[in-house]
Amino acid sequence: MISGKIRKMMESSSFIRKMFETGARLKLEYGEDNVFDFSLGNPAMDPPGTFTETLLEKAADLHMHRYMPNAGYVDVRKKIADYISSEQETKITENNVVMTSGAGGALNTVLKTLINSGDKVIASIPCFMEYKFYCDNHGGELELVKGKSDFNLDINAIETAITKETAAVIINSPNNPSGRIYPQETIDNLALMLERKSNETGRTIYLISDEPYRKIVYDNLTVPQVMDAYKNSIICTSYSKDLSIPGERIGWLTVNPEAEDYTNLINGIILCNRILGFVNAPALMQRTIAELQGVSVDIDLYRRKRDYLAKKLAEFGYKFRVPEGTFYFFVEAPEGDDMKIVDMLQKERILVVPGRGFSLPGYFRIAYCVEDSVIEGSMTGFERTARKSGLKQDEK
Amino acid sequence: MISGKIRKMMESSSFIRKMFETGARLKLEYGEDNVFDFSLGNPAMDPPGTFTETLLEKAADLHMHRYMPNAGYVDVRKKIADYISSEQETKITENNVVMTSGAGGALNTVLKTLINSGDKVIASIPCFMEYKFYCDNHGGELELVKGKSDFNLDINAIETAITKETAAVIINSPNNPSGRIYPQETIDNLALMLERKSNETGRTIYLISDEPYRKIVYDNLTVPQVMDAYKNSIICTSYSKDLSIPGERIGWLTVNPEAEDYTNLINGIILCNRILGFVNAPALMQRTIAELQGVSVDIDLYRRKRDYLAKKLAEFGYKFRVPEGTFYFFVEAPEGDDMKIVDMLQKERILVVPGRGFSLPGYFRIAYCVEDSVIEGSMTGFERTARKSGLKQDEK
Repeated sequence: MISGKIRKMMESSSFIRKMFETGARLKLEYGEDNVFDFSLGNPAMDPPGTFTETLLEKAADLHMHRYMPNAGYVDVRKKIADYISSEQETKITENNVVMTSGAGGALNTVLKTLINSGDKVIASIPCFMEYKFYCDNHGGELELVKGKSDFNLDINAIETAITKETAAVIINSPNNPSGRIYPQETIDNLALMLERKSNETGRTIYLISDEPYRKIVYDNLTVPQVMDAYKNSIICTSYSKDLSIPGERIGWLTVNPEAEDYTNLINGIILCNRILGFVNAPALMQRTIAELQGVSVDIDLYRRKRDYLAKKLAEFGYKFRVPEGTFYFFVEAPEGDDMKIVDMLQKERILVVPGRGFSLPGYFRIAYCVEDSVIEGSMTGFERTARKSGLKQDEK
Repeated sequence: MISGKIRKMMESSSFIRKMFETGARLKLEYGEDNVFDFSLGNPAMDPPGTFTETLLEKAADLHMHRYMPNAGYVDVRKKIADYISSEQETKITENNVVMTSGAGGALNTVLKTLINSGDKVIASIPCFMEYKFYCDNHGGELELVKGKSDFNLDINAIETAITKETAAVIINSPNNPSGRIYPQETIDNLALMLERKSNETGRTIYLISDEPYRKIVYDNLTVPQVMDAYKNSIICTSYSKDLSIPGERIGWLTVNPEAEDYTNLINGIILCNRILGFVNAPALMQRTIAELQGVSVDIDLYRRKRDYLAKKLAEFGYKFRVPEGTFYFFVEAPEGDDMKIVDMLQKERILVVPGRGFSLPGYFRIAYCVEDSVIEGSMTGFERTARKSGLKQDEK
């Protein structure tokens, strides 16, 4: 009785449901505290104190719950534009910014604006698989291309995939699930290639940079900017991860003022934000985050978790690239079998996500945005699983 | 460069943009206070005091900004289910409720779940024209049928429009823009007809009841329930209007537990709420409204505005049906020319929306969710326009 497409989507996501059900069953059987859940990017850390202070201050103001322009409050957008300008080396104004219901809202709004029925959008493996739905929502199709073995973008692979149907390329750096930051040289090469291919195909290929992890980086690295590198660029982001407020659905997007067809693009995006039913980003959260530009949770807490896990997982014999950003490890599955290692870890009451959930079987993802006690409690299970998988050398 | 469809949508909404620009120009020229803006359903009234108290209490809790199930917090849904059960004479549980980003989010989520490409959704004129976009978003088409001259549903007209492609009928009572409450008898007849036609076409026709104005009713009227009348029913609503918080994007939907294909329907809706990019309804607002079941702004304030306007507009010679609910008057345009009266009122610095904005030229809509000073200040202009239009008898 419901849409045939939605029914099929539910059937094909059955492995995720099975995982979820196993997790729920384990928690019921052993108690929440005895299950080590690394499956979701749902930060266990509290938002920074200044977030709550600002929220309470804004919430006390009675007059702020009305509709505002669909793009968001002008003064909020101005504060964000100033912050982006300092970060991106490109002058952004409030007119280039649209407040959104998180990065998910931003991406859908942008994709609806860009996609003609049958268009393709390219992303690099491994990637956040919600992109597939987001493209399909608007009559487009996500085309996945292989990344390099170090999880960097493979510019040649992207170039080969581009046709006249290519509306956009989505990148996500720091990357979920790999934790990779694409270097500035890679972004610059991507930009040059996209310029050349746009000329060749006669169609502007937009670059959509999904950046919710921009502030969660380690070792004094910074995330390269895309605006100055490529004029046809759009940034989508949210405060979900860096302020630990994913339930609140607040983010923004910005369109490069130099982009082709700029006026239609920004007006189309504002229209789509309305007609998709978002209407506008939540009012009180707009007011709150406006005052918190540059603020984030203490990244050093994540860094310590990363360093601990990197040391222990390596000791146990797991193979991985140490993440440069995000709160994910993307670890090689023993014998390349992601479903097997996921099952084995479940027997130790450890929940992780198989690589196929990011179109890259042969790996598994550990989301370490959890309490230290969860990490520490899981070590025995990770170690025993490594031994059983033949990873661990007996007595060094 | 952007989607051809979106470009066309922007072109075709040019009359609304023109109105908006005229309004902005008038405000710039004469000052905000000297323009009488009745164009938007954006309540000028503060939320009730208990809303702010509850919000502050919930905002002080640091731990509530994480992801929760895509359907919303279980305990929040439980409170809403209990409230709906008391209102609808149908037992609703938390499993039948999904928290949404307002009614706009709810409607998109439901329509995506129901619509196969090429399907039709029927609505009665006059109606909120965002429905057209909401259907089109998901590959469907809104089919408008004429209502009766008293703005009641014309069940025969709806029946005639139904084919095998009909996925759903949307009703909106109390109605924007007419202020009409559809009587229980009408709902019951609609239900009987939909049952018969579902049997005839061999396809379940769902009834989507969009009810954001349910609490804004006058003269001791109540809004008839749909759940007991028709099993294949879904209610979508928001707290935007009755709590005066449209900027916050919080609402819910509920699926009749007796509906055909219930399990796929509710699971499909939860999936669509996620993949459309809503992910979940804003967390803090979920927590807040959970405590405010049955609470609303003081409806008597709206009733007084309605009564004042009804008296004055009638004196001036305008023809209209006194609204039973909502905060809208839908008034006959002199000589049936909605664009002309809108222009004439603009010359008096009065902003209203032409009937064609609701697919019914020949009327104009006054949104009276404004301060008394706006209503009072506009009276001279309404009177002068009535005279010029030949409505007003000189000296009674």
